[in-house]
Amino acid sequence: MARAIELAKRGRLKTQPNPMVGCVIVKNNRIIGEGWHKAYGEAHAEINAIKNCKKKFGAKKASKLLAGADVYVNLEPCSIERNTPPCSHALIKYQIKKLVCGTLDPNPKINGRGIKLLQRAGIKTSVGLLKDECKVLNRIFFTTQKKSRPYIILKSAQSIDGKISLKDGESSWISNADSRKDSHHIRSGVKGILIGRATAEQDNPSLTVRLTNKELGLSKNDAFNQPVKIILGNPKRSRKINKISSKNSKVIIGSRLSSIQSKNVEYLEYKQKDFLNKFLKDLLKRDISSILVEGGQKTLSSFISKNLFDELVLYTAPMFLGKESKETVSLIAPDAINKSKKLKLVNTQRFKNDIKATYYNGNI
Amino acid sequence: MARAIELAKRGRLKTQPNPMVGCVIVKNNRIIGEGWHKAYGEAHAEINAIKNCKKKFGAKKASKLLAGADVYVNLEPCSIERNTPPCSHALIKYQIKKLVCGTLDPNPKINGRGIKLLQRAGIKTSVGLLKDECKVLNRIFFTTQKKSRPYIILKSAQSIDGKISLKDGESSWISNADSRKDSHHIRSGVKGILIGRATAEQDNPSLTVRLTNKELGLSKNDAFNQPVKIILGNPKRSRKINKISSKNSKVIIGSRLSSIQSKNVEYLEYKQKDFLNKFLKDLLKRDISSILVEGGQKTLSSFISKNLFDELVLYTAPMFLGKESKETVSLIAPDAINKSKKLKLVNTQRFKNDIKATYYNGNI
Repeated sequence: MARAIELAKRGRLKTQPNPMVGCVIVKNNRIIGEGWHKAYGEAHAEINAIKNCKKKFGAKKASKLLAGADVYVNLEPCSIERNTPPCSHALIKYQIKKLVCGTLDPNPKINGRGIKLLQRAGIKTSVGLLKDECKVLNRIFFTTQKKSRPYIILKSAQSIDGKISLKDGESSWISNADSRKDSHHIRSGVKGILIGRATAEQDNPSLTVRLTNKELGLSKNDAFNQPVKIILGNPKRSRKINKISSKNSKVIIGSRLSSIQSKNVEYLEYKQKDFLNKFLKDLLKRDISSILVEGGQKTLSSFISKNLFDELVLYTAPMFLGKESKETVSLIAPDAINKSKKLKLVNTQRFKNDIKATYYNGNI
Repeated sequence: MARAIELAKRGRLKTQPNPMVGCVIVKNNRIIGEGWHKAYGEAHAEINAIKNCKKKFGAKKASKLLAGADVYVNLEPCSIERNTPPCSHALIKYQIKKLVCGTLDPNPKINGRGIKLLQRAGIKTSVGLLKDECKVLNRIFFTTQKKSRPYIILKSAQSIDGKISLKDGESSWISNADSRKDSHHIRSGVKGILIGRATAEQDNPSLTVRLTNKELGLSKNDAFNQPVKIILGNPKRSRKINKISSKNSKVIIGSRLSSIQSKNVEYLEYKQKDFLNKFLKDLLKRDISSILVEGGQKTLSSFISKNLFDELVLYTAPMFLGKESKETVSLIAPDAINKSKKLKLVNTQRFKNDIKATYYNGNI
């Protein structure tokens, strides 16, 4: 299963909104085939593992080997046909002996149905091996399925005293070059990058992933799709936000004001004042299964106070920015300290004198 | 030299205001004696290493072995008599061949004089081996000698959004039990713990080290001296601060108001409004070579804004305390981000969901 998870990770930048899945086929304590889901719309891990077995041994010998083999996969094999025929059918066809999977598929249309199909065909099944690791691997997928909204990562760089910028808005550069490079890796793993209207007007950021294919772990000719740029609220027409809409990038703006539609900008308009929940659902419908929220204060605070986040990444730079500067977040205080919401610290990392802390908000 | 540093650390809780010193004597690539400075007022490392050699080989053989030996010590051997006769004399008397030391003694009365004494006696000398490690080992000693004030560690526990307490003053418990235990280890390494008047009145803390001898790395019968408790400003007589002055603890209060002297409380009175520098020098005169400043906001901010600190230890708990809560520090903002003072991150450590970050303020 550990090997299946390892294989699954190879699809990291390309499977969304699908999960990452790896598959290992074992016969007589020997791996006879392995595969992973390479990209959204392409073959699933189980099919690729069977193909791999055939390539290794030839179709005829592979069929013999597969009959009676054990199959390890981090996620329940699918039972429905979407882009590809269901994997359960293939496993039944090749008469495997046992299926070991890490977790059930959280998709309510599958959730246990894949397992049942196999059981009915006389295949032994076991669910739960390395369950936690399998869930963490696909936090994004589990969240979209269970919460019907994108997986949300909040990100900010702040000073030791919790400030995001000076009073005049200056925020470059609080964190150092290594931290900023790391934050591009976070960007590369999401389908959308969201900022608030005020930050768009103030910073005119380009919101692109500026990493080479090598840095992304992609091969030279692999195409990398830039995340969609999302703005919460409608920037004033008088303010320049040309970097966001440049270079044929796709931009989505969610706001209460109607605007003239332009070429690469999609406007989503809402009547209600508090449209964030609806906006997020609409983004998921557009296959934006994960969003990195990069600020500013009002936007971050809004996601936190509505409890609309799954992960918080905070870079702390070794400086004080003082009482006149802008706080990273502005939230209502709890009545008592033990009533305050607690996050789970999952990782800390040093980038020279900066500290990166990654927190999870609740379990999946 | 690495072994000398290791030996030196054994004196950690007992040598202040003296430095930690370890000494290793080598003859023909074999260690023939080692020692360390065990406690303030007792024999120095070099003398203990010679004693150790005598104990191992007998006085007569030891004398023969010491003649022509190489001596490794992290700090320059002293040249003046204080509590003990100068170590340089002993090294000359035993006719060692070479002295290798990590750094010169920063004490202006020694600084190079010990080395000169040895050179004049025909002993080879080398200064600078593992210099940085030797300096870090004795950061406290170097600071007191160079800055004529105690080594100052600022410590606080704060929320992710940089808050030290709720509006009503509630601050227990922001950090978790493991973090709090760790902070008692920091207390154990200093000669004094300082808080501001307001924190004394608000929290009525006991400011003691609550660790067993085993936890402190001391043997069962070793006596541990509690740090002196120091209050900046005079607490109101109407407020209970009985925990601070209980249990025969020594308390020093520095303020501008005159007060009736009580049994275990020493009052230091100052005419000038800004007496912090003077107060710190007076504390050093009382052999308080290191101070842990534990808050609150006004006190921490005062030390930071006057640049009177050498180390900052910050525990960050995984919660938000909101805009109404009290900020850990309240400082004047810099004109620009690149003009803000940068600290050096020396260490990060996890205590469950808390992060401990240790910063140095400048070099020694």
